[in-house]
This record gives sequence, structure tokens and C-alpha cells, in this order.
Amino acid sequence: MRWQTDKKIAPIPMRVVGPVKIVSTEVNEDVYLPLATLESPLWPSTHRGARVCSHAGGIRAVMIDERMTRSVLVEADTAQAVYQVYQSIQQQKEQLQAVISETSRFATLIDMHAQIIGSMLYLRFELLTGDAAGHNMVTLASDRMLEWLLLEYPQLRYVSISGNFCSDKKTSAVNGLFGRGKNVIAEVTLSRAICRGMLKTTPEKMAEINLKKNLLGNIVAGGLRTANAHFANMLLGFYLATGQDAANIIEGSQGIVHTEVRGDDLYFSVSLPNLIVGATGSGKTLPYVQENLQLLGCLEKRAPGENGRRLAVIAAAAVLCGELSLLAAQTNQGELMRSHLKLERSSHL
Amino acid sequence: MRWQTDKKIAPIPMRVVGPVKIVSTEVNEDVYLPLATLESPLWPSTHRGARVCSHAGGIRAVMIDERMTRSVLVEADTAQAVYQVYQSIQQQKEQLQAVISETSRFATLIDMHAQIIGSMLYLRFELLTGDAAGHNMVTLASDRMLEWLLLEYPQLRYVSISGNFCSDKKTSAVNGLFGRGKNVIAEVTLSRAICRGMLKTTPEKMAEINLKKNLLGNIVAGGLRTANAHFANMLLGFYLATGQDAANIIEGSQGIVHTEVRGDDLYFSVSLPNLIVGATGSGKTLPYVQENLQLLGCLEKRAPGENGRRLAVIAAAAVLCGELSLLAAQTNQGELMRSHLKLERSSHL
Amino acid sequence: MRWQTDKKIAPIPMRVVGPVKIVSTEVNEDVYLPLATLESPLWPSTHRGARVCSHAGGIRAVMIDERMTRSVLVEADTAQAVYQVYQSIQQQKEQLQAVISETSRFATLIDMHAQIIGSMLYLRFELLTGDAAGHNMVTLASDRMLEWLLLEYPQLRYVSISGNFCSDKKTSAVNGLFGRGKNVIAEVTLSRAICRGMLKTTPEKMAEINLKKNLLGNIVAGGLRTANAHFANMLLGFYLATGQDAANIIEGSQGIVHTEVRGDDLYFSVSLPNLIVGATGSGKTLPYVQENLQLLGCLEKRAPGENGRRLAVIAAAAVLCGELSLLAAQTNQGELMRSHLKLERSSHL
Amino acid sequence: MRWQTDKKIAPIPMRVVGPVKIVSTEVNEDVYLPLATLESPLWPSTHRGARVCSHAGGIRAVMIDERMTRSVLVEADTAQAVYQVYQSIQQQKEQLQAVISETSRFATLIDMHAQIIGSMLYLRFELLTGDAAGHNMVTLASDRMLEWLLLEYPQLRYVSISGNFCSDKKTSAVNGLFGRGKNVIAEVTLSRAICRGMLKTTPEKMAEINLKKNLLGNIVAGGLRTANAHFANMLLGFYLATGQDAANIIEGSQGIVHTEVRGDDLYFSVSLPNLIVGATGSGKTLPYVQENLQLLGCLEKRAPGENGRRLAVIAAAAVLCGELSLLAAQTNQGELMRSHLKLERSSHL
Repeated sequence: MRWQTDKKIAPIPMRVVGPVKIVSTEVNEDVYLPLATLESPLWPSTHRGARVCSHAGGIRAVMIDERMTRSVLVEADTAQAVYQVYQSIQQQKEQLQAVISETSRFATLIDMHAQIIGSMLYLRFELLTGDAAGHNMVTLASDRMLEWLLLEYPQLRYVSISGNFCSDKKTSAVNGLFGRGKNVIAEVTLSRAICRGMLKTTPEKMAEINLKKNLLGNIVAGGLRTANAHFANMLLGFYLATGQDAANIIEGSQGIVHTEVRGDDLYFSVSLPNLIVGATGSGKTLPYVQENLQLLGCLEKRAPGENGRRLAVIAAAAVLCGELSLLAAQTNQGELMRSHLKLERSSHL
Repeated sequence: MRWQTDKKIAPIPMRVVGPVKIVSTEVNEDVYLPLATLESPLWPSTHRGARVCSHAGGIRAVMIDERMTRSVLVEADTAQAVYQVYQSIQQQKEQLQAVISETSRFATLIDMHAQIIGSMLYLRFELLTGDAAGHNMVTLASDRMLEWLLLEYPQLRYVSISGNFCSDKKTSAVNGLFGRGKNVIAEVTLSRAICRGMLKTTPEKMAEINLKKNLLGNIVAGGLRTANAHFANMLLGFYLATGQDAANIIEGSQGIVHTEVRGDDLYFSVSLPNLIVGATGSGKTLPYVQENLQLLGCLEKRAPGENGRRLAVIAAAAVLCGELSLLAAQTNQGELMRSHLKLERSSHL
Repeated sequence: MRWQTDKKIAPIPMRVVGPVKIVSTEVNEDVYLPLATLESPLWPSTHRGARVCSHAGGIRAVMIDERMTRSVLVEADTAQAVYQVYQSIQQQKEQLQAVISETSRFATLIDMHAQIIGSMLYLRFELLTGDAAGHNMVTLASDRMLEWLLLEYPQLRYVSISGNFCSDKKTSAVNGLFGRGKNVIAEVTLSRAICRGMLKTTPEKMAEINLKKNLLGNIVAGGLRTANAHFANMLLGFYLATGQDAANIIEGSQGIVHTEVRGDDLYFSVSLPNLIVGATGSGKTLPYVQENLQLLGCLEKRAPGENGRRLAVIAAAAVLCGELSLLAAQTNQGELMRSHLKLERSSHL
Repeated sequence: MRWQTDKKIAPIPMRVVGPVKIVSTEVNEDVYLPLATLESPLWPSTHRGARVCSHAGGIRAVMIDERMTRSVLVEADTAQAVYQVYQSIQQQKEQLQAVISETSRFATLIDMHAQIIGSMLYLRFELLTGDAAGHNMVTLASDRMLEWLLLEYPQLRYVSISGNFCSDKKTSAVNGLFGRGKNVIAEVTLSRAICRGMLKTTPEKMAEINLKKNLLGNIVAGGLRTANAHFANMLLGFYLATGQDAANIIEGSQGIVHTEVRGDDLYFSVSLPNLIVGATGSGKTLPYVQENLQLLGCLEKRAPGENGRRLAVIAAAAVLCGELSLLAAQTNQGELMRSHLKLERSSHL
């Protein structure tokens, strides 16, 4: 089969922008941001955001949840039968943990959620996965738990190892509500002088464009748990640079910008409930990935999970920088187009 | 600024799988599929789908729409005022076309849609953009139309060059309903023998897993216009290999699998209303991109738009191959995990 | 069958509140609002909103679209076949109009939209239906068009007279984007003095609660094209009082509040893209309905459609009154509960 | 104020259909179904469904969850501050229960869920509310808990007693995923002979129309957690007849039909995660409501909650009957229109 013999690479252009000052439990220092992208305006734009935030005292971030999920799908003959099984399963968390402990020393079952539709059970396992994003870890763990369940409850039949209630790389509400990946909030407070001097805008204009474009614009577009301009761009650049499964920008893009004029200041925040990143695991051994994880301080000897959480906080900061800069540009008629044209003339990819 | 001086690359592993036979107006031949990805199981899985489909006589595809969009956001003092302006604008398509013809010889305004919320007008311009995906072309065209509108209707005020009713790189319903990018349907008919021999499954099992996982699973997950297992994976791999703006996998992931058991055969289709691809434009001059577009036959001398449409049809075929193969694997308990583990042991990225 | 012999009624309590002054093409006068409800606080709350708006010079309203829809569902053997049929149907609007003209002198086909999924065609007919809401008129018209299509295109097969792409009495994005029912925007401008004196609030507090509760709150809840507090309550009360099919509050509830602080004033608007109301048709001959339609001035001799549009504008005004009043109450801690408790003690339903 | 002095009623036509045999923990007998509606075809259609299901051995139902919710909205200065408060609140469930126990002997806090956006906390209280639907009970309880929280955590500021994360009478994903109201599944198994003889259809046709109309049709319409034809109609009729707050059909309409051909039988199920009903509380003392609740056996001396759960199971059965009948009619071209026309000619409302 040809795919085995003909090894190639897609060399995506990459730059490091920043640094940006971050203040959080996970990161408390200036950090450079590597971004791999074909959209060259992303670099100066994110860089501008990083400079502005650092100048304003830095980005404050807080990580409020983490988990990786996989939902198996089984069925019985009746809704009653499947409901009884589910009630019993909820008493079996210790046994399920024992089953998955054989698959990984990091896999820890922290919660389960279910949906019963007719006589089918969508069972969502939610695990801690150490420093890995955890896709493979939860699939392996779910595979074993599923095997165990089918033995334990002979009234159940296998339908699918994944019932799409996970939900992986697809738009959904479930991920934002039950959690998938890291849930990080990043915020910054900018004075009127900084807004004017460094972003050519005002706190009032920023609050207005966020309201009318990011909130109302996404609502009229029929968006789902989405209120931002271009989270996806920064996530794609950062994910490609750090060896992530970049298809998870789909969940990542479902985040929310909230701004307020506070006195003479602008409060600007990004809430990212589904940052799916890992500091180890599939793709992380590639040399350029190692180099970038090193740069980000995410290869240190730390307690399991700490490098992954650090990476998530930095990803959120990168998103804030790029979002802030683009929104500011769009508050001024013509600025976006002028800067794009200027960049394209000067760029030599 | 550091990002200007320190040029690097992210060398993403890439393989060419297939070929797959495609039967359509745009492509009528065997085509190889280049996929750049860190998820190595994607290659053999998509390859298997390609072999199966070719063996069954090929993938039939039809392109039913194409357009690229940008929505500007303006406002007036009252809903009445903004509504009157909108009624007038609808009579001005010729003038708007004249304005944008100065920006590109390919930019052709084919439709407009609007939403009026309070005293704001979200105005979505829909253009043909030749062989380019058209992000920059529609932004430039919208910038000029916006300038023209603000002069023509002094009662209007600028709010944003993009009102998020476009909608770019964010989950939405508007793109699937009004169109954004290419709308392609690809389908294949597989005999029971092929299902059994090459996919270790049956037509009935395939219809069942599509119903229970792709349709019901996404519904319970709170998905939006999404009914598939992993369109995003194939799109990411194909987009990275062909120099697309890969953040557009977000729109792309909102597609639908429909299957039917027809007599002794399996009918299997993927409907992709938002394939955003270009054969020219930003990122397309990179050597590896040129090489892949060449391989795909998308750099030929053809009428404007034909290379782009050809590329979209091939992208849809790639999605079908990967989706078919994964779903088949998931109809059998344990197969997915076994094949992943086997691949990971043997892969040397 | 018992349901035929045992006729009863459900006597829902009804009150008339207001009047509220409305300024629009369709209504330009003071109007009383009949509301049938079991939730007695709805009356004084909506009444307060009506008084406030009248005091401020009245509610300005504009109707920007109207149509009633039904989508038929047919299929062929391949996507290609169904696409060719659809291209041909688009040229047949005159014939389709001829077919439906036999069913009603009001039924006028104004647009069609389609979705092709696999080899299926979801075809959405969009009609003007005079003063009727038009559910039955479009179903009858679609029934005939469907019959005609199946004769004209023998490659098509019947699947369903309704393919749920209509979409009737179910949450959707399609209705807000393509239109279903009347699309009305109502707005009012309130001075700071009125906000303070009559609503015990301020323009700033109203803008804040709308942003944080109606916009962000619905986004985090995973809402769809919804940004309001309780449109459904006023719609239900008004629909029951005027003999509407009250299940259409589902579409009606998907509307948007937009507020702005303008200098020292509050701009407050409700945008209702899916007001499904009729001044004639099923249920409208009941005596209490006739009485209320009479009160609303919607039984006058006017050009077809004018009574229906007038009714829609009044419905939007009722929604504005109730929404304004509840939001104002919620800006003050404890006010909502105090007023509810007081009302319940004094109410004698 | 006029609304106080001028008491009227809206006499909605009401019929009792059935009986339908139900088999469940909550109901195990034949039950008649009262439906108040202006859409007269609803009666014979639901009646047909009831006869069919009874003939087939009855509807099996299972209630898998119940709760009523209200989300308060508070804020602090930073995301970090609000996150710390939330962590602390999670340890205070006993104190919160003590606070709400003063408001009602039925109000029992069973869970909380939160979303942190920027520096705001959307805190969703989930309570058992005895036999009442519980809107007022949870609002009063939340009012007190909010008061307590603002005293306990002076860093918090009041934003709204309801943050729309509840979510009441608005389309959302949160209610289906976290629960609101009763979550009931009802199912029936029909032989091929019953399908043919009593519904003029086949198991295969029913499975096909459910797939193509209810699942795919709602997906293409941009629906949200919705896969049915007209749950809203039966819910409206039943809610009006039993004194419910009928605006809650919005949540109720977000339910799912799942069908399967099992050998020679049709398995047909409705899953209703958000049935908001009460056997006591606001509106329930009206004479016609008392009469209907009596007829349904929901005014018996039972443990708190049992009458409410019984009512929910009956509501689900009514939905199943009406959905089954309409879908069957739509499998045959022309049948829906013929039966509607016939009914309209013979009805004398």
C-alpha cells in the first residue's frame, strides 16, 4: 500500500511571537508563543496582543476543570432494562477504576454521564489522563470497561465503542456543559491609555464590537455556545506548533469573549471550556514539537498533569492575545484590510 | 519583533493514500489522496476506504453549490431606518458588483442575505471567487462595498467589517443553510460481499451504527447540523496537505452521513455543505502544496473555478473513504482498539 | 369513540391589559392586549410595560417579512438524479403556482429552498397566505405540488408530505434564517427618568442584565438563536386569547432582545423573526376569539394580509411590554420574588 | 388597572381520548387522555394511537430522572475570585439546604452545576419539588440561597435572580443534558399485523420515515436535541387540560423518537427528557383541572412526588400515541390531507 512507502512532510511555516506575561497558578512568567500557520497576519496580530497584555501587567488565568471523555454505546431490549443496568453501573465505579488501572497508571475515572434514548445507553466516561490529551488513553480504557460491562450485564449488546456523546472533533453542547479537555479562563485589564495608544481603540468601542459582533453576530448566525471572532486561528497555530491533534480546534472554537467597561478600563476575558492539549502522547516526540514544548516550559519534571495544565493556560493566553488584537482592528473602519494588504506585500513565505 | 526574524517550520508527516476512483463532472478518474497528519491510523483507514470504493465501481460525486461569504455590520437609529436602507440596497446589486469588480476580476456577487436585529443590519455578501477559497477576496470586496454603502446611505454607521454572520471558522447553522464554500455530496454503493470481505461488516450493521451513533449520538450530544463520526480528521489531513486554511475544518465538520440498505447493497453517502478549499491563493505557492495540487490535477489550465471545484470533489471523496472505514471498524467490538494498538507498535513517525 | 361524544372546555383565565401606544405602518394607535394565562403575574407585569412604553411615546414597530412554509421530502436513486430534478423544479415556479392556485386564492408561492442529503431532496415551499397563519393552506398546497412533482418527475419517490425542514413547532435555525411567519421588530426609547420612576432601574442596569442574562446566559445554556428572558409567556397568553395554534410559541420563543444606552436614554428592542399568527382560519370563529380580534381591530375590511400583519405587530408589542417589565424587575435583588408573593396572596383565580 | 377588573375566560375546546394501557411503576392500568386544543385533528389522531398501543399490549414507560432548576447569576472582580467562591459553595450544600428548608418542606437540593464566564458565575440549583412542577418553589428557594450567598461571600455582587442557565421556556441544550422536569421514556412494540391493519403502514416504512423526517429532517433544519414530528401538539393539549404552565412545551418539544424493525415487529419509542408537569401548585385548583387530574388518578393520597411522576408518565404516553399516529399517516401519500379535510368538514367546534 503506497502510503507506507512514500514518506513526506508538509512544512508549515512557524514563528514565535511574544513574549506575553501570564499570571496564574500554572504559569507565572513571560512566555513566548509558537504559532504554525499559513495565515501570516496571525503572527503580528497575536504579537501585538501579547505586547499590549504584558504592558498592562499580564494575563491572569485560571484553570477550572480538566477531563478527557469517551462515550460507549450499548443497548438492551427495553428502556426499563437499560435503566436498571445504568443504575447498577453507577454503583460500580470502583470496579471500573480497577479495570482501567490495568491500561494506564494515569487513567482515573472521575465521573460518568448517561443518556438513555429508547432502549439504548450512551455512557460517557470522564477521566483524568495525566499530561496527555488522552484520546487514546480513554479509548483504551473505554474498550476495557465496555468488555467488562458486556460480561457483567449479559442483557447488554454492543453497538459502538464510541456513541458520539463524547464528543470528539464535532460541534456539540455536551463538551461545554460536562467538560472535555481543560476549561480555562484568561483575562486582562487595559487602561484607556493602553487601548488608545497601543490598540487605536477605546474601552467603549471594544465592549460594543464584542456585544454586536461576537455575541449577537454568533446568535443570529445560529451558533452554538460560541461567542468569539477567531479563536480557531490561534488554536490551530498553537496546536500545529505543539504537536496537538489539531482537529480539536472544533471543540476549542466554542468559547466565549466577555468584556466590560470598568470605570476607565477595559476588562477583556476569554473563556475556553474545551482546550484539548497534551504535553506528552501521540505526536509529541517529533523534534520540532519537543523544541516548542521545551520553549514553553512544558517538559519539566513535575507532578503528572502539571505540564499539560501549563500548556492549556498558555494556549488560552495565545487565544486572548489574537482575539484582542483582531477585535481592536475591526473597531476601526478599513484598518483590517489595510494591515492585511500591507502584510501580504511584505511577506515572503 | 521576534516573529519577523526567526523563521521555522512545523514538518507535519504526510502520506499519499489510495488511489480512489471518482465519477463526477469535475473528476472522472483514479485519484491519490495526500493527507498530512499526526494521527497515523488515518492513513491505512482512509486507504482501506479508497480501495473498497474503487473496487465497488468508484465514488459518485455531485457539486451543488459554491460561494464565499463575508457579512458586514452597520447600524442606524431605528429598525425602520435600517429596514428602508436594506430594501434600497437590494436594488443596488449592479452598483455593488461594479464596486467589487475593481478589486478582482473573479469576484462576482451572486446573492445577499440579511438579518435585522434592533437597529442593526447584518448583511451577508455571497460571491463567486474563481479558484480561490476566497477569504481575502470577499473581505476586500466587502471592505469596498461597505465604504460605498456608508457614503450612499449617510444614515448608516460602521460597526464591523465582519459581523460574524459570515460565519468564518465558527460553528453555525447559517453556513449550511445559505451556503459557504462548496456543497458536495459523495456516495458509493457496496455489495454485501464487499462489505463482508473488505470491511468485515454487513450493510445492516453499517446502517445501524450510522443511525445510532452518527445521527442519534450527535443529537443527544447537542450537535448542530452534524451527523458524522470524524469528517474533521480527513479534512484536516487534506487541508494541511493542500495548503488550505485548515481552521475551516470547523465548518467542514458540520456534514451528514446518510446510509441505506438497498436490497443486498449498502448505499453510503456523505453530504458536505461547507467545503472551503482553493486551488490558488494564500499558501498555495509553497512547494509541497504545488506538488500535491499537481498530483491531484488541480493546477491545469481550465476555466476559472474548475480547479477549485475539482479539489472540493476530491476532498469529499477523501472524507467518504475515511468515514466508511472507521464506521465499519466500529461495528465490530474491539476492532478499533486492536488496529490502533497494532499501528502504533509498527509506526515510526 | 369517546372523544366525539363528550365535549368540554378548558376555561383559561383571561385579562385585557394596557393600552399600549404603537407606532407603525400596520398599527398607529393605542391598543389593549388580551392575555389568557394561568400565570397571573403576567398581567400586571405586561401592563406595567405597556404603561411605561406609552408614556415614553409608544412602541415603534416594523414588519420586515412574512411567509408560511411546508417542506416535502422526496428521493431518487442518486444524488445526481435528485440534483437534476431540483435544478429543473427551480424553473417551474409558474407551473407550481398554477397548481396551488386551485387550492386557495390566497396561496402565493414566493420562494423555495432545498437541502439535498444523499439522494433525498428536502424542498421547502414558502407562501403568502393572506390573513391566515396558513398551516393548512401550505399543507394543502404542498400536497398538490407534491402530487404534481411525482407525476412530472417519475424518478422521484414519495417519502413524506412534511420533511421537518419546514419546521413546525420544533426548535430550529431554519425558521429564523429563511423566515416562517411574520418577522417583526419592535423598539422603544426610554429616558433615564422613566427608567427610574416607572421601572425602578437605570439604562445601564438594563443594558447590563440583557448582556449577562439574555445574551451570555442563553449562550452558556446552549440556546439556539435565542436571547430573551420570557418571550414565550407573552406569546402563549396572546396566542391563547386570539385563537392561534399556541404550539407555535416554540418558534416564537427564538427571538432576540437588543438594548443600548444612548446618551441618557435606554434603547430597548425585541426582534421576533417567527411570529406565526392569523386573523382568520382554524379556531378564529370561536366567540371569545372574535371578541378579542375585534378589540384588536383585526377584523376590519382590509386588503388580504393586512389584518394578519396588524395582529403580528401587536403580538410583538405585547412581547416587548412583558420582557421590559420582567428584566427591569430582575435588575433589583429580591424584587421579583416580592412582587410574585404579593400577587399570589391577592389573586383569586 | 383594567386587567384587575375585567375577568374573562378563554374557553378552549377539550376532549378526552383513549383509553390507553400503560405499564410502568407509576401507572399500571388503562388511562383516558384529556386534550384541550383548537386543532381538532389531534383528538382522533391521538385516539387512534391509544387504541393501537392498547391493542398491542400497552405502552411501557420508565421515569429516569426528575428535578426543577433555577440559575442565579452573580459576579466578582476576577475569574479567580469567582472560581474560589464556587469551590467553597460546593462544600456548603448542607447550609444551602438549611436555607431553603425554611421556604418549603418539599424543596430538596439534589445537585448544582455552574458555568464561569469571565468573572461571572452562573449557578444552577437543581431541586426536588414534590408534586409541584416547582417553578415558584425553586425561585423562592433560589432567592433565599442568593441572599445567603451574598452575605457569606461579600466579594460577590448580584446580577440576576435568573441567569438563563436554568433554562425556562427557551430552547437550550442544558435542560436535556443536566435535566429539568421529568425525564421519561415510553415505548411500544407493534406487530406487522397491527401496523398494517390499524395504521395502514409497515414496520419498515415507520423506521424509514423516522430516519428521514424526524432525525435527518431536524438535523438539516438546524434543530437542537430534537427528533420528532409534533411532540408539541400533544404536550400543549395535555398541559392546557391539566393546568400546567403550557409555555414549558418549549423544553418538552426537545425530545427524540427512536424506532427499530425487530424481526417482524416495530419497536417505537419516545424519549422526553424535559416533561415539566405538576399535580399541585399554580393553576391546579381550577375546577376543570381538578376534574382532569381526578380522571388521571393524580389527586390520590400518595407519597410526595408520586402524583407528579404519574402525571409525567401519562403525558409521555399521550405524546407517544399522537406521534405514532401522525407518522403512520405520513408514510402514505395523501393520507394526511384526506383525513384533515374529512375532519374539518365534519367538525363543529
